[in-house]
Amino acid sequence: MLGIEQIASYLPPLRISNFDRKAEFEIDDNFIDAKIGFRAVSRMEADDTTSTLCEKAYARLEEKVAIDRNALQAVIVVTQNPDANIPHVSAILHGRLGLPEQCACFDISLGCSGYVHGLSIALSFMAANGMSRGLLFTADPYSRIIDPDDKNTALLFGDGATVTLLSDAPMFAPGQFGFGTIGQDSAELRVRDDALYMNGRAIFNFAARHIPKDIKRVLAANSREISDIDSFVFHQGSRYIVETIANALGVPKTKVSFGAAEYGNTVSSSVPMILETEMQANDTNLILVSGFGVGLSWASTVLKRTQVKS
Amino acid sequence: MLGIEQIASYLPPLRISNFDRKAEFEIDDNFIDAKIGFRAVSRMEADDTTSTLCEKAYARLEEKVAIDRNALQAVIVVTQNPDANIPHVSAILHGRLGLPEQCACFDISLGCSGYVHGLSIALSFMAANGMSRGLLFTADPYSRIIDPDDKNTALLFGDGATVTLLSDAPMFAPGQFGFGTIGQDSAELRVRDDALYMNGRAIFNFAARHIPKDIKRVLAANSREISDIDSFVFHQGSRYIVETIANALGVPKTKVSFGAAEYGNTVSSSVPMILETEMQANDTNLILVSGFGVGLSWASTVLKRTQVKS
Repeated sequence: MLGIEQIASYLPPLRISNFDRKAEFEIDDNFIDAKIGFRAVSRMEADDTTSTLCEKAYARLEEKVAIDRNALQAVIVVTQNPDANIPHVSAILHGRLGLPEQCACFDISLGCSGYVHGLSIALSFMAANGMSRGLLFTADPYSRIIDPDDKNTALLFGDGATVTLLSDAPMFAPGQFGFGTIGQDSAELRVRDDALYMNGRAIFNFAARHIPKDIKRVLAANSREISDIDSFVFHQGSRYIVETIANALGVPKTKVSFGAAEYGNTVSSSVPMILETEMQANDTNLILVSGFGVGLSWASTVLKRTQVKS
Repeated sequence: MLGIEQIASYLPPLRISNFDRKAEFEIDDNFIDAKIGFRAVSRMEADDTTSTLCEKAYARLEEKVAIDRNALQAVIVVTQNPDANIPHVSAILHGRLGLPEQCACFDISLGCSGYVHGLSIALSFMAANGMSRGLLFTADPYSRIIDPDDKNTALLFGDGATVTLLSDAPMFAPGQFGFGTIGQDSAELRVRDDALYMNGRAIFNFAARHIPKDIKRVLAANSREISDIDSFVFHQGSRYIVETIANALGVPKTKVSFGAAEYGNTVSSSVPMILETEMQANDTNLILVSGFGVGLSWASTVLKRTQVKS
């Protein structure tokens, strides 16, 4: 059985405080703490790129777990902000990390739903091809495409990256997945004239309307109830959307993480950044993960602990 | 069993003749016919985009086979030239084609090896998630990024798109795949200052060195010999590379297609465009497909006919 052996994250140290921008954007403390929930957003260095963020996440992974690079058979990067559109970021990483020739590399273009999609895509690809060790990266530095004067995006998005070691010695393995797309609304969150445009209200309404329904379907597909789940890791779009989804499902606050207050919405990295922490907790045997955003799209699954925590 | 039910291609009618550019690029008829092999390259209309090319390929597919759009469960687009980086092209198509909500959509960033990779990625994702019908598109209009004065690229690349209907009623199904990446050479084929840069000699040497070896490995993995294969569909990088690989393998000329002479190298669409024709032949029961390029990367497999041709 293939699944998640380990996750490592990288958050650049630079932060932009949203409290310093209260006057500019005509917002108050309540908007920052209760509505968006992001006290600051993380920013990569000027010489960082998507691939260097991934490399820094990978360095963290090697601090956590010994990796035989020659045994890696797949490298998959989820991003919509590659270094350049050609080549894919996974090929650049393949070269920098000195990986073996018989290693399949490709990028997946998805946003905030990308990690959960990527788990299914990567694990099914690896299983079908008899692969036992691979890397799933997420890195989508929206600072490259954000208009710093756009209140709808500038206060929300943080830069960061994660890497997940997928292997046949997993700590967690996914059950049934649920996926969805509402392509007719895809223009509500897009790049237009090289800058990110987001209709925040439309995205909120989309998530509030569809994600609780989808999570109920996925729980049913896994023969689980809300009460069976030890931890709910939703995409950290804002504190308000996380709480709205939790309330709609009747999930107790203690089981829902909002961990992005000090760095912002890191797009496809938001779920694995929280999951990295939740995996280490003593009492998490079943974790529901759900990502939603660009597309508009979503993906959810239930992760089950496969090893007794030592 | 999932596999390829049908393929449809779209080539825009506009052609640029390479014979009309002999003086400009200081080339002769022999270079055009014997070396690159492309007498003309196809060009999309000014108002075409990657998504409209895909739509036009899809319209051809619906002419060939009846499709219940509500039964489509996955839409996957292979491209490195999306309409915009956000959202993914598959989401745009999902909206335009009016597909159902519970349909997974994502793009794969790969170049000339993308179709063969995409077959494995799409089929394994669909199988793992219990899906029985999906679409795999390819469209990479390099005319968007080609410097028209660059002899290394302007004479080679044509625009086009394909769509493959993947289903549980396949005409062909893949066996074992082989994949590879040489990321340390990825800069030999990349976008630099918004234009495509290609070190043609390095790409040729890469393909000549690695692809015959890989094909032998893939044949062995499928317990097949060269002589078992009825048709070899190589990426149409140039006539010379197709012939070089065929000669290295000792494949008779009658079994190797070079079909792109009138439209050029259509990147990830090159293999499915030839495969569409080869699938219809009376004597093709085993078809070897191999794509190679951006990454630098490659992917190969053996496709086996699953239905007796009526």
